[in-house]
This record gives sequence, structure tokens and C-alpha cells, in this order.
Amino acid sequence: MAGSQFGKAFRISTYGESHGPGIGVVIDGCPAGLDLDLDLIEKDLQRRRPGQSKIVTQRKEDESFEILSGIFEGKTTGTPISIFIRNKDQRSKDYSHIAQKYRPSHADFTYDSKYGIRDYKGGGRSSARETAARVASGAVAKMLCNHYGIKITAYVSSVGSIKAPEIENPDAEVIESNIVRCADPSAAEEMIQLITKIRKAGDTIGGIVCCVVQGMPVGLGEPVFDKLHADLAKAMMSINAVKGFEYGSGFKAAEMKGSEHNDQFYTDSDGLVKTDTNHSGGIQGGISNGMDINMKIAFKPVATIVKDQNSVDKEGKATTVTGKGRHDPCVVPRAVPIVEAMAALVMADHILRNRQSKL
Amino acid sequence: MAGSQFGKAFRISTYGESHGPGIGVVIDGCPAGLDLDLDLIEKDLQRRRPGQSKIVTQRKEDESFEILSGIFEGKTTGTPISIFIRNKDQRSKDYSHIAQKYRPSHADFTYDSKYGIRDYKGGGRSSARETAARVASGAVAKMLCNHYGIKITAYVSSVGSIKAPEIENPDAEVIESNIVRCADPSAAEEMIQLITKIRKAGDTIGGIVCCVVQGMPVGLGEPVFDKLHADLAKAMMSINAVKGFEYGSGFKAAEMKGSEHNDQFYTDSDGLVKTDTNHSGGIQGGISNGMDINMKIAFKPVATIVKDQNSVDKEGKATTVTGKGRHDPCVVPRAVPIVEAMAALVMADHILRNRQSKL
Amino acid sequence: MAGSQFGKAFRISTYGESHGPGIGVVIDGCPAGLDLDLDLIEKDLQRRRPGQSKIVTQRKEDESFEILSGIFEGKTTGTPISIFIRNKDQRSKDYSHIAQKYRPSHADFTYDSKYGIRDYKGGGRSSARETAARVASGAVAKMLCNHYGIKITAYVSSVGSIKAPEIENPDAEVIESNIVRCADPSAAEEMIQLITKIRKAGDTIGGIVCCVVQGMPVGLGEPVFDKLHADLAKAMMSINAVKGFEYGSGFKAAEMKGSEHNDQFYTDSDGLVKTDTNHSGGIQGGISNGMDINMKIAFKPVATIVKDQNSVDKEGKATTVTGKGRHDPCVVPRAVPIVEAMAALVMADHILRNRQSKL
Amino acid sequence: MAGSQFGKAFRISTYGESHGPGIGVVIDGCPAGLDLDLDLIEKDLQRRRPGQSKIVTQRKEDESFEILSGIFEGKTTGTPISIFIRNKDQRSKDYSHIAQKYRPSHADFTYDSKYGIRDYKGGGRSSARETAARVASGAVAKMLCNHYGIKITAYVSSVGSIKAPEIENPDAEVIESNIVRCADPSAAEEMIQLITKIRKAGDTIGGIVCCVVQGMPVGLGEPVFDKLHADLAKAMMSINAVKGFEYGSGFKAAEMKGSEHNDQFYTDSDGLVKTDTNHSGGIQGGISNGMDINMKIAFKPVATIVKDQNSVDKEGKATTVTGKGRHDPCVVPRAVPIVEAMAALVMADHILRNRQSKL
Repeated sequence: MAGSQFGKAFRISTYGESHGPGIGVVIDGCPAGLDLDLDLIEKDLQRRRPGQSKIVTQRKEDESFEILSGIFEGKTTGTPISIFIRNKDQRSKDYSHIAQKYRPSHADFTYDSKYGIRDYKGGGRSSARETAARVASGAVAKMLCNHYGIKITAYVSSVGSIKAPEIENPDAEVIESNIVRCADPSAAEEMIQLITKIRKAGDTIGGIVCCVVQGMPVGLGEPVFDKLHADLAKAMMSINAVKGFEYGSGFKAAEMKGSEHNDQFYTDSDGLVKTDTNHSGGIQGGISNGMDINMKIAFKPVATIVKDQNSVDKEGKATTVTGKGRHDPCVVPRAVPIVEAMAALVMADHILRNRQSKL
Repeated sequence: MAGSQFGKAFRISTYGESHGPGIGVVIDGCPAGLDLDLDLIEKDLQRRRPGQSKIVTQRKEDESFEILSGIFEGKTTGTPISIFIRNKDQRSKDYSHIAQKYRPSHADFTYDSKYGIRDYKGGGRSSARETAARVASGAVAKMLCNHYGIKITAYVSSVGSIKAPEIENPDAEVIESNIVRCADPSAAEEMIQLITKIRKAGDTIGGIVCCVVQGMPVGLGEPVFDKLHADLAKAMMSINAVKGFEYGSGFKAAEMKGSEHNDQFYTDSDGLVKTDTNHSGGIQGGISNGMDINMKIAFKPVATIVKDQNSVDKEGKATTVTGKGRHDPCVVPRAVPIVEAMAALVMADHILRNRQSKL
Repeated sequence: MAGSQFGKAFRISTYGESHGPGIGVVIDGCPAGLDLDLDLIEKDLQRRRPGQSKIVTQRKEDESFEILSGIFEGKTTGTPISIFIRNKDQRSKDYSHIAQKYRPSHADFTYDSKYGIRDYKGGGRSSARETAARVASGAVAKMLCNHYGIKITAYVSSVGSIKAPEIENPDAEVIESNIVRCADPSAAEEMIQLITKIRKAGDTIGGIVCCVVQGMPVGLGEPVFDKLHADLAKAMMSINAVKGFEYGSGFKAAEMKGSEHNDQFYTDSDGLVKTDTNHSGGIQGGISNGMDINMKIAFKPVATIVKDQNSVDKEGKATTVTGKGRHDPCVVPRAVPIVEAMAALVMADHILRNRQSKL
Repeated sequence: MAGSQFGKAFRISTYGESHGPGIGVVIDGCPAGLDLDLDLIEKDLQRRRPGQSKIVTQRKEDESFEILSGIFEGKTTGTPISIFIRNKDQRSKDYSHIAQKYRPSHADFTYDSKYGIRDYKGGGRSSARETAARVASGAVAKMLCNHYGIKITAYVSSVGSIKAPEIENPDAEVIESNIVRCADPSAAEEMIQLITKIRKAGDTIGGIVCCVVQGMPVGLGEPVFDKLHADLAKAMMSINAVKGFEYGSGFKAAEMKGSEHNDQFYTDSDGLVKTDTNHSGGIQGGISNGMDINMKIAFKPVATIVKDQNSVDKEGKATTVTGKGRHDPCVVPRAVPIVEAMAALVMADHILRNRQSKL
């Protein structure tokens, strides 16, 4: 009933605090026989890592991980896969000033109220460091997806008011070629400049991540509540700082007519049923129709800013909070691999769940 | 692993098809001792009912329900509560033409592909009739919410390009005073005219429903994956025709700075911790902070339109589909009680789950 | 988190009270394409039915059932299957005397303490009538098992001190040929006489049901906690009046040496791996090995007896309770189809879960 | 849907293999504010440890553990508690001979069949080393139980044909004063002699563990499927080598009359409702009635014996297997803390689940 598990068939259990011994994840339900590519885990952890560029937090985290179980001679065995990432750079001094105060728009107040106790160092369990466990297990899920031909690619489509065009077929190389992970190189440059400016001002800025899933089989997703897009929405909304989710036509659908919005069917030259438009975003009735899935995820600006803010302390007395610590001026460049990880976890879960649909 | 259950502590299992014997729901986990108000169930089912006004489908559904278990002398007993709504007006002839064809942007193709068999009458399980079970069980969840002082109110904020102002403190009487369920009477009038026009044209139109949750206790929601807003997102995205979800500052947050977005804390005259703004939408770190929760849910235009559309049949051959049947020109007026029901189900679940947080 | 659901992949939700509108079950997770044989459901409900012979309760229950969803043209569609059995013969007067008193070894006291409210009519939710939902859904599970060649047969092996020999390959025809459902006709006769004598004395008697599962595939069951026999144990122990469970060598294993107990492997003429003995009871490491599964389930004597017994009332005051109503002198003849149903539900669940074990 | 999780509210996820990096467990759902006593974890791990006496396996395992998360300043925080026990003494050479052969009555054949791959070193995931994770998390569950006054005590009641008397109120000091963990010192002596003799003969022997739960509150356990004793049965049957479970009157109930078996109620001098006998074993209708819970769990003899046995290899060819390695001649002395751990995990789960029963 507590909330640190995700998935029904491909299920992860995560644990760990920002300044405790480390962050980890146990995957229960990965089928046996999958080749485990440690480099893919390493690569995605590096993409999520602090300190990777000048526009992200300069906090140092050691992302070296250890596989504690579930692998034999390089392959999954069907038993739980445990991955552990030990914390290293923990400057606890940085956080002592917030032990008694609630940082605005952080989880300090709500954790204290809910549990009556709070690990205030680095945000404890509410720290974005928690997403390392998502990325590590998401990399395993990606391997399962890849095995079945599913490819997941996310990229930054906006930072503040700078909007890059949305891309139907995003190119991972282009995305990784710039530090903001935008699929459009010229918009990327503008975004980097904006983030740099924001960072110098001690402020932070929001942004949007797009995610495209290609190579989808038909049939993933379960009616009624576990519609594929409902599970994707939950997955994405559970990432720190996310405020909105849409797929396919998204919020624009609210202004459209049925005669504009409907995707008409045809059979392509390979005999596959396709739709001529894709306002459905690859999902109809909660079940994948084989077209690409596309989603958009809105991130708020990071709450830690270098600026005096009004707040209250544990006794409810008025006080002032000023962000110190090392923080991200904009979360979206590092959110890209997290979004991909969550998409992969949903797909892995539904690949397995769909095996139950027929005799 | 199939998807017809929702909730972990307050868990519903729904069943039923559009043209089968009926639609039902079993609630497992409702605490004992709650007074069951049958009128509230009846009232919400009436708000969801087809044929309730000139701007919704003129299909007749009998919404009379029967409580099959779980109630003794007017109170819940802690055992499963089963509610059944028998189908009555079933014109199966209306649907025979789609047995072999896939209606664009419906679930026909995906169901057939996933299961190898499809109850084509009225959409079977993919019919919006399924939402009656949500509304009935949601009404019970509302009673639990009410018991703890939580009040849930949804309303239509846009239809097509007609946008009503968003309301912080929506008035249920105003909302129910117009057939489109808009909180702003003058916008309501425009919306009704637009829907009427769209209906005459045989077309359909999308819209947006807003939902406000007031009287929230602090502490509902579970880190990490079962954040309160993540569960709300999943709940709303699982409703037929929903394409997007946002809460608090939503997609606008992506354009904001931290210095604009952060909600500063203060203690009010009752000694309660509050925030001066509410971009957090009442949720911080996935846990309710006592401020109102507000959400926005985007609905696409209904897929059934009176117009020839290209499609394919079960053999993949090109064909034409024309909407017959009786359908809604715009889904949002009837979606209002469904959105409220899903919000109530999430809150009821988290009220119970939160009992586990402390010794 | 309430307890009226069973199974993870093939999941049932049951509801209903002895004297409410009826008893029902929703199956979520049955694969599409299974032919539904209504006669099999009917047949098993008849085997569980009160009043079927002179040695069971003479209470009349109408076991006619209605399929409310999930079936289209005689086949399962992959959507939830709902089955409802309406209560008919409800003599509420019979139970008024126990509204304020706790019957010894019944659930009256514990329900009242746990929930603060109790449907005292016929035991409410704690009534054995609840098992009708198990039998109905178990019949569907049996159809799935049959589809995969699995055959489940239970029989009575003892009543009181009368013990019939255990049978490796029980014959359903022989079992159903006598009203006590013993696989040995001469022991059956003795059992019937004993039960008749017990009944006349206003007393009740315990007994043992054996269950054999044949045609098992290799590989069903999940390490570590969801071992096949652990799930079977839970399934059987959840039946009213069950006090003990063993499989394979069972309690006798505690007295055996490894050199006696180990089952040595060989390959049979069909190239299948077999064991020369079957102390493992068809399960090794929690996973089926293809040999027959055999289990033994101990039932206590029914708690309702025609005899004055000491008890207390709701205020804790001493009082006397005397069994009236109509009750079974011995539960095992009617428990046979219930045991089979629970075994089938476990097997159906693990058939589906096992689809996840490999790529 | 894989099987390495246990519990619904107090949920553990275990992982790890005998000869991999280690064994671990993540607890999700432990309430905040519990004092974590590391010594209690250490003590129970020592009671389960190989090499603790001359009658258990002489294999050396380092049981030093690390808490990876969930604790802050000595208290639980409500976030997942992760405990890791690193493997140290791994003589992989000992196991090379079984890579291609199936040991009789082990899980080699079934794992290979189910997964198509098997970590053969020390039995991999099927090794009894897995129970260290149960004991570590069970120790945390015990702390929660202790907080609510619940005390759990297990002891050995039989080894082979040597039977000690069953004890209503077992004394932990007496039990721990002898290496076989029998509550009766003179029977303990006989048991130790028998095990020593069996060990010298290269054979193994079964036994029985009894468990008593005292200080039970009224109301734990959920009807219908999650009856307290059904969850206990599953918990115990999931332990390696267990073949049978009974509670209260157990299998003897099958021979009893209702007039003998019923437990009559009375109110004691403290105003508490009690029963004069306890055939119910502290549970009525699946819910605790406040009386002590007592259970009996039968263990088979360990499958590894120093003796040539017939078997087959991966190709199905006849071969001979001889136990080498270091193994237990009798599992029950080390099973005592495992049984206690599983009982504690069930009680912790139901303590939390019961918070949902009333408004």
C-alpha cells in the first residue's frame, strides 16, 4: 500500500535516500533468457548524472552500480534482479539549515506531516536522486523492449518560452549531440543560453519533454483502468516536478471536431492496418494499434532557487529560506532518460501482461 | 493483470458490456459503519445518464441499480459492496453493420487484434456505458470522502474553442443549473449553442473538464510512484476519450521560473500552514498539503460521426463506415460526474492507505 | 487490502451474504476464446448445493445463476466474467435469536469486534454460502485447466474415525455414485451411517478431503513465496472450517529420512522425466514437475449443534446458545467441489503467470 | 506476477542467490516512527546461521548485514527499508558436478524446465540461503508486532520419531538453551543424539516446528480469502522443505465432534471475552479472537544426502548423483527463526490492514 513499487508483471521496488548509503531497485518479473547489457545501464545513468554539463547541477554523484542478483553468465534467470548505486558525494552540511524549516514547493512540509519524521538531508526519499533507480531498471526494461522491436526516444521540446518543433521520428544522435537534449540543434542553442542566464540569476526554469515509442506491436494495454496511456500518464506524473501529461492530439483535441480528429484506417503495402493520421497517438480504447505512441510531459521549474523566500518552521513560525546546495537550473535535460525509463517500464509490463489475453 | 480493477485499499472491480445483461461493480475495502445514501448514487447516475438533455445522446438507458451485498440496516459492513445496473434499451440492430468493420478512432480494431474476438454490439466492454460502474462506486467513495470533510466538484471549462473562466471555488448549484455543466452561465449558453450546431452537422466536438477538491487533509498520497497526482492522472486518463491531464500550474509551469512558481508558506489565523499561491495544486512531493487540488482533463471529440469515413474490414479490405446509432455530440457534460467519481475513488483509496504511514 | 479477492492473473472478486440479495463473483483475467460450458457450472453448483441428500443440510438454496458479462456467442472475450446467484430461501426468523449472542466457534464475535457491525442473518458474509461463488468461478477455471489437459478430482477420505484408503487415480464416477463422495464404496457406506447417527444426535463431525491434480505441465508455480503448494495451501485454508493442509508426503515427511523420502529421476519411454516415487507431491522448489499433485485437507466439525452451549452476548454477559436453523452434520461431502474449485483457481492463475517466465 | 514478494500492506521484496553477490530484502510499508533495533536483526540472523552448532551444516556464511535505506536517526521513516547481506563463503567448485545433472527432490529440474536457464551454484535462488532475507525483514516485523504487544515464539516439537510435548506457553530461554531448539530439555537431548547419528550416516531427517503467537489483539485477518490462518499457511508453506501446516485442533479436528470441538465463550475478570478451550487456535472466521494462535509446521528431510542416487541429466540420460557440499542433517533447528519471521510478517501485514476495517 506504500508507493515505492511500479508495474504489475514487470514490477520494480525502489528504495534509498539522497544521503543514505545509496539508491537501489529490485525488478521482479523479468523473463529469463534476456542478455543483460551493462553498458546500456551505465550509459543511461550517465545521461541522468549530475555534473554532466554546465547547464545541470554541479553536484557530484557516483553512478557506479552493482548487480546484486538475478543474472547468471550474462543472462537474466527469471529471478529478481537487484541493482544498487552507492551514494558517495554527500555534503550533509549543505542541508543542516533546512532541518527545521520547510522549503517552498518542496516535500519537506508534507513528509513531516505525513510521517512525523523526515530525513532532511538532501530531501531524503523525495530527492530526485531516487530517479537513478528508475533509470537503472528502465534500462533493463528497454532491453526487453528492444528484444521485441520497441524503440523509445525522448527529447526536450521546450525550455521556458523557447519551443522547438515536435519531431515524428527523433534522431537519438542529434539529441545526444547537444547538452540540452533537444532534437532541433538551433533551438538547442537558444535553450542552452536561456538556462545559462537563468542559472546565473539564481533562478530556475520549466520545460517540456516529448517521448516517441516506435515499433509498437498491436495489442498492448488493458481495458478498462489499465489503458496503456493511463499507465503511461501515471508513470510520467510520478516523476518529480511533472505537472502535466498528454498523448496524441492531447489538449488540442479539446478544440477539435470528430471529423478532423478521427484517424481513418487503411491497409499498407505490407498488409498491415494503419491510420492516415495519428491523433490517437498510437492507442485506441487503451490498446496500442501499432502506430507510434507520442507523449508530452510538462516539468515545473526546480523549487530550489538562490533567493530569500518566506516560509514557516516546524513550529509554524514565519521564517526565511534561501536555496544553497547545488541544484539544477532546469530539469529537462536530465529528465530525458528518466522519461524513457518510465516509458520502457510501462511497455515491459504490458508486453508481459498481454501474454494473458488469449488462450 | 487484466485491467478492470482500480485502487489498492478501496478497490473496485467493474464488469459489463453495453448490450449484455448489465454493468456492475464490486467495491472491496470500504470501511464498516458508513451510512449508505442511495439517493446520492441515484443522483450521480442521473447526471451521467444519456437522454438527460437535448445536447447529449438520445439513447435511453435505464439507470436503476440494485445493491447486491455489503449493506446491513443502511450501513456498510466492511464486506464487499456490489452494485448492478441492468441494461434495458438495447437496439442490437443498430450495430450489426459494424460487426465486420473497424470504426475509425474506436476500439474495434485493437480489441479484435488483442483478443481475437470482439463483442461488437454497442462497443461491448469499450462502450462508455462502462462508466456507469465508475459513477456508482464513485458515489460510495464520495460518501467516504464527505465523512472526512473532502468535497469534490467538477465542471466544464471549455467546449471547442469556447472557454469559460476557471473557478477557484465552483458552485455546484450553478453548474447543475445549465445542461452543459459549466460554472459560468454565460459561457454555458455559448457552449450549448455550439454543441447544438455541431450535432445538427452530424459532427462532434471536444472539451475540457476542471475538477476541484476542497477540504483536503494534509498527508494523502504515497511517494514515490503512487503520488497523489500520479494516481489522479491515471484515474482521469482511464476515462474514455481523455487525451490530457494537468494539475496545479500544469503545462503553464513549463514556461515559468522557480521564483514565480514557488508557493511560499505562511501560518494562517487558525494556526494552519498554508501557501500564498497554489501552483502546487495542493500536492507537494506527491502528498496533499491541505490546499485545494485542482485538475484539468482534456476530452477528444466523440469518434462516432454521421459522415462517410474510410476504413478497413476484418480482412483488411478497404471499406466505408458511417456513424449511425445515437451518440453524444460532445462528451463533457456527461463526463463531469465521471471525473468526480474518479477523483473520489482516488481520495477514498488514499484516505485508507494513509492510515499506514505512522505507528 | 480487504480479503475478498483471490489470484493474481486469473483473479476473482467475490461478494454477497447468506441472506442478502445473493452471492456473486467477478473473474478478471480469463483469456479470450474459451468455450464457456454452462452445464459444468451448473453441475458443480449442484454438487455443492444444500439439500442434495439426506446427510447434508436440508436448507433450500436456489443455485440458478446468471452470467452478467464477459461472454459473447458462447466464448470468453477477455473481459471480466460476472456470475450472480440470487438468494431465495431465506428464513430470517431462524436467526433472530443470535443477533445479540455469539455462537461458539462461529465468526459472530470476531466480525462484531473487527467491524463494529454484523449482518447476523445466516452468518452474513461468514456463511458457507459464500463458497457458491468459489464453485462458480472455479468451474470456469476448470474449463481453462481442461483446455490445457489438467484434471482435478477431489474425494472424501475420512469422516470422523472412519478412514478410506487414499487413491492415486480417483474415479469421478465412483465418487459421485455415493452421497458422501468417498472414492471407496464400502467406506462410503460406513461414513453415511456415521453421519446419519451424528445428525440424529444433533451433533456434527469432521473429515478429510483429498485432492489429486493430474495431467500437470512442468513449470507451474513461482519461487519464492508463491510456490505452487503455498498458493494451494492458502486456497484450501481459506475455505470455511479447514484446519490443516498437507501435500505429497505431508506430515509423515517429518518422520522420514532423506534416503527414504527423495524421489529419484528417470526418463520414461516417451522421453519424459519422471520420478519413481512421488513424496514431492508433484512439486519441487515450488514448481510443478509433471507428476500428479496430491493434497489432503482437514475439516473441523460444523460449529452449529443442537445443544445448549455457554456463551456471552454483545455486552459480555453470560448466556446460552442453542443451534437451531438447518445445518450440515458433516461438511466434507459438500466440500469436495469447493476443494476442486480452489485447486482449479490456483492452477488457472499459475498457467497464466507461467507465461511470463521466459522470453 | 513473479513470486518474490510477500504481504500486501507490510510488503517485502526479496532477491539474491546462494553464490551471487548476496541476499537482500526491501520492506515497503513499514510505518514511520518505529525504533529499529539492529541487535534483534543480528540475533535472529545468528539463530538461522549455518555453522552455529554441531548438528547443522558446517558451511560458513557471513551474516553481517547492511541497512541501505529507510532509517533516520535510528527510526523508520515510512520509506522503504532495504537490508543487504553479502555472500562470502562461496566454494563454487563444490557445485560444478551438478551443473548438468538434476539432484533428486531438489529444484534443479523444475527451474531448468521453467526458465530454460539455471544458476546451479548452491541452488541459486532455490537455496535455503534465501531465508536470510525472510529472517532479516521478519525481525523488523517482530519489532512492529512487539510495539503492539504481540509475541511470537517457535520451537522444535519433533525430529523423526522423537516427539516432545507441545507447550502452551513456550519459554524462549529454554528453547535457546539447547542447540536443537526444543522446548523440552530431555527430548532435546534425544533429538540431538538422533541428528548426530543421522549425520554420521550421511542421511537426513525431518521434523516439526510449533509456533505460538501470544498477546494477540482481536480483529486481525480478513475474510474471505485472506483469513489470518490462510495467510499463515501460505507463509509457512512457502518456506523451503515444508510439507504440511495445521493450526488449532489441526488434523485432529477431522476426527472430532462439534460438541467436543466448539470453544465456549466466557468473560474473564478483566471483562475480556475468552474461550474455555482453544480448538479454534485463536482464529474464528479467519479473524483473531484474542486467544493464542498456535500452529504446527512439518518439514521434510533435507534432499542432499551422501549416497548414490539415480537421476537424469539435462539431456534426460540416466546418471548418478551423490551429495557433496555441506548440508544440514535436519533443518528444524535453523527453521525456528524462519517460522517466527514468517509469522511476524503476516501479523505486521494484518496489523496494518486491519486499520482499514472501520470508519
